[in-house]
Amino acid sequence: MQKSNKVSEAVIRRLPKYYRYLKDMEKNGVQRISSRELSDKMGLTASQIRQDFNCFGGFGQQGYGYNVSELCNEIRKILGLHKNYNVIIAGAGNLGQALASYVGFERECFTIKAMFDVNPKLIGLSIRGIQILDIDTMRDFIINNDIHVGVVCVPKNKAQEVTDAMVECGIKSIWNFAPIDVGTPDNVAVENVHLSDSLYTLAYKMNEI
Amino acid sequence: MQKSNKVSEAVIRRLPKYYRYLKDMEKNGVQRISSRELSDKMGLTASQIRQDFNCFGGFGQQGYGYNVSELCNEIRKILGLHKNYNVIIAGAGNLGQALASYVGFERECFTIKAMFDVNPKLIGLSIRGIQILDIDTMRDFIINNDIHVGVVCVPKNKAQEVTDAMVECGIKSIWNFAPIDVGTPDNVAVENVHLSDSLYTLAYKMNEI
Repeated sequence: MQKSNKVSEAVIRRLPKYYRYLKDMEKNGVQRISSRELSDKMGLTASQIRQDFNCFGGFGQQGYGYNVSELCNEIRKILGLHKNYNVIIAGAGNLGQALASYVGFERECFTIKAMFDVNPKLIGLSIRGIQILDIDTMRDFIINNDIHVGVVCVPKNKAQEVTDAMVECGIKSIWNFAPIDVGTPDNVAVENVHLSDSLYTLAYKMNEI
Repeated sequence: MQKSNKVSEAVIRRLPKYYRYLKDMEKNGVQRISSRELSDKMGLTASQIRQDFNCFGGFGQQGYGYNVSELCNEIRKILGLHKNYNVIIAGAGNLGQALASYVGFERECFTIKAMFDVNPKLIGLSIRGIQILDIDTMRDFIINNDIHVGVVCVPKNKAQEVTDAMVECGIKSIWNFAPIDVGTPDNVAVENVHLSDSLYTLAYKMNEI
């Protein structure tokens, strides 16, 4: 399946949702699904779904619908989830520990290799088999352990500094939970997750209803 | 400022980001900003910004730009963040505790009144002054404490059941972190937060770069 050159951010953001629904269907033994059924489940229009899949060359056959396993596999590949990624987490506070324990995190292709913190009370502990190391050793660890993803769970005022250190040591993608947008060079991918944005959206919605 | 009847989901999702940037500017003493400057900061086009604000009747004056404090206040009101909300968290595991400690959570208008869990080792503890109570007491607590927001941090297989209990006791908005989309009646707002969606988007991006 070929990727088209210009896939919009909106389409990219829907891919993980398709993947989630298809994985669940596959697990529940569903073998095929029409775009109508898929649209009912996901709250998208059938034409939206066809348009989205056309960005990647299209899937499915007229009159048959989609083979769930095949579609799930294709989207897994498009997302790059058929590869393996080594991950470190900077900041072993509540959120860092929560992410280290996040169910499903390691079921996919992401392996957390270590966590890092400045707090002497945390350094040396293990969370579900993941060691918490001194943040001063993070640069060497990245260089020596082929780390692909850096998760940033440090306080806001340290987030850019930690991101810069990760990038300088060769990390190519940053998953940031500190409540600022961290910047990265063009050749480094970044996802800034703002939990409060979702809470504020919820506040808007509850006042609209 | 009047709300138009049909504000798209995409515009609503950008509002928290505007709010975040404007609050930071206000804090840093910035008094006014042009849509061009705002667009440079936020990575949106100036025309996109004007269109977004027009959904709410428009802000700013030709040749002057936007008054940062006024705009920040207007967006705060549109989001409903000028009100106070009582919050409970179901599930006091890693993620529940992380959210209870989330810096900034209580600086806004959200007050966490209690957390609930099934684990006898957690029941009776306090996290930053927030009590962890037996989940069997959750229904009574909601009914007696005017709770507006229910945060769901329980395992996937309990998420819908806990959501249903919250809704039955009168909660009008659900912030769900369990890795499924929980369903609610039409008169109950819901935000299903899928942390893995953001990680999968990151995987896609790092393979594109």
